[in-house]
Amino acid sequence: MSMPAPAVVLLSGGLDSATTLAIARAQGFACYALSVDYGQRHIAEIAAAAAVARALEAREHRVMRVDLAGIGGSALTDPTRAVPETPTSGIPVTYVPARNTIMLSLALAWAEVLQSTDIFVGVNAIDFSGYPDCRPAFIAAFEQLAARATKAGVEGNACRIHGPLISSTKAEIIATGMRLGVDYGLTVSCYQADAQGRACGRCDSCRIRRAGFEAAGVPDSTRYQAAESPRP
Amino acid sequence: MSMPAPAVVLLSGGLDSATTLAIARAQGFACYALSVDYGQRHIAEIAAAAAVARALEAREHRVMRVDLAGIGGSALTDPTRAVPETPTSGIPVTYVPARNTIMLSLALAWAEVLQSTDIFVGVNAIDFSGYPDCRPAFIAAFEQLAARATKAGVEGNACRIHGPLISSTKAEIIATGMRLGVDYGLTVSCYQADAQGRACGRCDSCRIRRAGFEAAGVPDSTRYQAAESPRP
Repeated sequence: MSMPAPAVVLLSGGLDSATTLAIARAQGFACYALSVDYGQRHIAEIAAAAAVARALEAREHRVMRVDLAGIGGSALTDPTRAVPETPTSGIPVTYVPARNTIMLSLALAWAEVLQSTDIFVGVNAIDFSGYPDCRPAFIAAFEQLAARATKAGVEGNACRIHGPLISSTKAEIIATGMRLGVDYGLTVSCYQADAQGRACGRCDSCRIRRAGFEAAGVPDSTRYQAAESPRP
Repeated sequence: MSMPAPAVVLLSGGLDSATTLAIARAQGFACYALSVDYGQRHIAEIAAAAAVARALEAREHRVMRVDLAGIGGSALTDPTRAVPETPTSGIPVTYVPARNTIMLSLALAWAEVLQSTDIFVGVNAIDFSGYPDCRPAFIAAFEQLAARATKAGVEGNACRIHGPLISSTKAEIIATGMRLGVDYGLTVSCYQADAQGRACGRCDSCRIRRAGFEAAGVPDSTRYQAAESPRP
């Protein structure tokens, strides 16, 4: 029996990346989960990622730190900028400059060390916030880059970037995860979760997530902040 | 009179990146120098980068830390792997997985925050160690990615990746830098420089550098380790 192939899975601790890890595992990969602590406000994400990695039996869970907060430019990393609680048009202020490019670059480095040719990322271009680095054209461009960027790539072992959720609705993602045994109660999607990982129920990410549970017909297992529970 | 446009310049503290900073400055850019401390053995590079940034009047010099040593995979970050002192064929063990991809990603993030559309990187595909991420095809692929990766990019302000040295010989680079007033005595290229930034004179990087000074007909201002001075 051959050894399972290794894959690096970017794991934020949110709903999408947890589902992505479950998919990679179901496809038979030995999963190496990578979380990036970039100075985000919602640091409860990292604790959630560790719990999800454990529950879904990742071989290893690595947290890499990059100080994106030092350069600012996003409501997610700059405490002087408010996270919006009503829908906005265009790319919102919660966009973090070049975040997914940085995360995929770190995943690419680890994949090469692990001799892995598969990276999974939970980007989604349907029920999402409009970020440019969640779209199919971005993933395709990164795959092109990866083939030219690494020793493995130029030697013929280019990395494939898997975005299995890219064309799924939030409801479809949740249905897939439920089938694969994801415990969404462990995940944190809220942009302003408290230290215990409890969600605000009001930010863009909370709204998209709650609508997904409703559309999937699945009870919402999100832990909300007591005084801030969502309106029915 | 209009304000000079900002540019992010990747500055390792070595000869090529110092020359690149001098070129960006000569082109009239307000230069924001970025050094990445990725756990490299030759940490004297970072001190050299600070001195070069000061000498060439960068507006700001930022050091970002990423723990690539934690994942290993290179003689530059893994103390159990030796830096070779004789020429090798193929891509050498000093290759750091996805290093330039990670550095350019960080530069891209800072550029977007600075509202800059210009990134300079001192890659060189002539007198170099054979790294895949120093080639024109890599730079072109990163530029393609950048146009899809950021808010600025998709809104029509894509970043240009300048690699002004990519087709130059080491001698040409040195001649350009001398003309632009670069003090190469401040720079450190050695893969195993000591804490004072003095070069071993034997590694791949030292050999390429010394041959460049010879070919340019310029006195070699490199500070070598006393007992380890290069053979004539």
